[in-house]
Amino acid sequence: MLSEVIAQIRQKKPLIHCINNHVTSNDCANILLACGGSAIMADDPDEVAEVTAMCDGLVLNMGTPSPRKLEALLKAGKEANRLGHPVVLDPVGVGSSSMRKAAGATLLDQVRFAAIRANAAEIATLVRGTAAHRGVDTDLEEASVDAVKTLAKWLSLETGAVVIATGDTDIVTDGKTLYRVHNGHPMMKTVTGSGCQLSALLGACITANPELPLEAALAAVCAMGLAGQIAHGRLLPLDGNASYRNYIIDAICNLTPEALEKGAQYEMDS
Amino acid sequence: MLSEVIAQIRQKKPLIHCINNHVTSNDCANILLACGGSAIMADDPDEVAEVTAMCDGLVLNMGTPSPRKLEALLKAGKEANRLGHPVVLDPVGVGSSSMRKAAGATLLDQVRFAAIRANAAEIATLVRGTAAHRGVDTDLEEASVDAVKTLAKWLSLETGAVVIATGDTDIVTDGKTLYRVHNGHPMMKTVTGSGCQLSALLGACITANPELPLEAALAAVCAMGLAGQIAHGRLLPLDGNASYRNYIIDAICNLTPEALEKGAQYEMDS
Amino acid sequence: MLSEVIAQIRQKKPLIHCINNHVTSNDCANILLACGGSAIMADDPDEVAEVTAMCDGLVLNMGTPSPRKLEALLKAGKEANRLGHPVVLDPVGVGSSSMRKAAGATLLDQVRFAAIRANAAEIATLVRGTAAHRGVDTDLEEASVDAVKTLAKWLSLETGAVVIATGDTDIVTDGKTLYRVHNGHPMMKTVTGSGCQLSALLGACITANPELPLEAALAAVCAMGLAGQIAHGRLLPLDGNASYRNYIIDAICNLTPEALEKGAQYEMDS
Repeated sequence: MLSEVIAQIRQKKPLIHCINNHVTSNDCANILLACGGSAIMADDPDEVAEVTAMCDGLVLNMGTPSPRKLEALLKAGKEANRLGHPVVLDPVGVGSSSMRKAAGATLLDQVRFAAIRANAAEIATLVRGTAAHRGVDTDLEEASVDAVKTLAKWLSLETGAVVIATGDTDIVTDGKTLYRVHNGHPMMKTVTGSGCQLSALLGACITANPELPLEAALAAVCAMGLAGQIAHGRLLPLDGNASYRNYIIDAICNLTPEALEKGAQYEMDS
Repeated sequence: MLSEVIAQIRQKKPLIHCINNHVTSNDCANILLACGGSAIMADDPDEVAEVTAMCDGLVLNMGTPSPRKLEALLKAGKEANRLGHPVVLDPVGVGSSSMRKAAGATLLDQVRFAAIRANAAEIATLVRGTAAHRGVDTDLEEASVDAVKTLAKWLSLETGAVVIATGDTDIVTDGKTLYRVHNGHPMMKTVTGSGCQLSALLGACITANPELPLEAALAAVCAMGLAGQIAHGRLLPLDGNASYRNYIIDAICNLTPEALEKGAQYEMDS
Repeated sequence: MLSEVIAQIRQKKPLIHCINNHVTSNDCANILLACGGSAIMADDPDEVAEVTAMCDGLVLNMGTPSPRKLEALLKAGKEANRLGHPVVLDPVGVGSSSMRKAAGATLLDQVRFAAIRANAAEIATLVRGTAAHRGVDTDLEEASVDAVKTLAKWLSLETGAVVIATGDTDIVTDGKTLYRVHNGHPMMKTVTGSGCQLSALLGACITANPELPLEAALAAVCAMGLAGQIAHGRLLPLDGNASYRNYIIDAICNLTPEALEKGAQYEMDS
């Protein structure tokens, strides 16, 4: 099942419009090339709708935001919805400022997402924002796996998006089915933007497999985690997080559909 | 001949003002340092003329554009023209939006370029824009080598710039003489911004060799392609596009004038 | 002494708000992760005060400036002062334009810095700006070590910041005590943003050791130089500046407090 997700990317070579932050844009473009897709980065409101229209899918990354960039996220998202292109949201640091909180709420309100990838805190912020918006009170500070599962499912049912909550254990859910993924390595936390890279990879997986968003998301999460494990296995004694960063993208580049099928470690949960 | 181009960079250490996109700015700065030059990146209209004035050459990269950045490209270009500094244009994705098409046409209209580096589609867009501007009809959708040669020569004659069309075969022409370059490796397409990097390298080559723009451009294209071959030759089984990206810049760093002379593969064509 | 500085970072894991340029933001985030801290990059005036408030320290990098970014630098700096968070200034290319000169003067006037890291030319510009502002005439074009020492001490006494002047020999001073650091390798000049990376590292060192800013700065400078030496020691024949860039960050990642204590090379000077 997962092998087919990767095979489809390699065959269809989806072109992904990424509105990205400037910290991780190079890595996100390279991981898209590594998996078999490619990227156009364009983040000005005056051109994003046209750029979205010439691409196959869209990834909206909220990092290093500005009012103009947020306007661009919204315009691109609406155009992708109009055209039926899959849209992935990465609400980077959505709880860090009022500007980001408002942007997260507006995006959830006005754009339909195929997938949302975030850590537990970001998901809690989105849920709180959404909940507040609907007059519901939420009080979910703790980040236990159970709480994250509840939040992720709730956000998925509310938005219609597959929700991917990354952390020590990664969770993938469409609100009904829920997977826990055990791939990955703790050292991935020492690479800036490993979450952004996963969101970019998700964009390619879902765009190339639009009928199977849950399986596509599961494949992306397993692939990224497996790449982190493979990369860790080749570290030399003097290597650190900078070489590790390169090895992770290298591993995606060399990942065969068969290797993903064999290496993916996940279980269905509830 | 080509060896002298590189030797001049190493001797003159040209300082290049790059107005670059945020996806590839780090790689472009590092390839300029690798070849023996150096970079200042500054992209705000309020300071670009001053920054251009303190540099030796200018590279205008149209990626991740915004109205302010496009204003900066124009201001810097005009100032470089006024001072007699060589200017290189990289019209990244110029066909991707109305904003970029208009910007490309304006830049060609108001700035004199020493060199323009682009892929076939970008060159076709520039030609069409230029042609339309002059009431000429063009219909050149196909990207056959012959069509690209025709377009590149025409653009060179119209603008006075050396035109470098990159693709499976790279073409370098000043409108009269035309070279086909056979260096390079298909894997270079899997590295984001390999075109941007070549444009930065072109900036250094032409700035250090202002009397010989055609030879300087030919040297840059051969050097970049040769670096791609050398980098490919050292790939380990687990290496992918991220390590390859580093190896290409490494190869420029270690490229001797003699190695370029020996490894350059090109032929004069018509 | 120096070992304790690093040990404190590893223990406290300071979160650093970096307002950075887009050329080196990825490397700066990764070196902060390498040393044991972490980074949030946010550069819009509408959110920087809030982001600063949730972090432990602040690094203001003046590269790729714009009016909005300069407004963000000022807002964040003032908020960090209000909260008592350490602030590091990296006045990238402050002499390159009127906009940057004015910004440098404004920042020195309105923000209290714990540390300022710059090369000789940038320090001379800051001193001249400050001096002019106070009606003092300075004429210090030469960059001899003695002149740099005088400028660095003067700037430190004027601002209350520890001043780090990087060059062939690095200088660290609080205006009274002055250290000359002999770690480092000439090849570090071939890596774009090695100065920005040092400023980010400084942010972590000083934030985790707020009572000892001089020692924290000395540790950061020795650590960065030692990393450059360790990275140089592992270069393979085909490696160049791109691999070197990764190896430097790797070396910070693997640097133990004991290795820093043993490898640091500095002397007290006057």
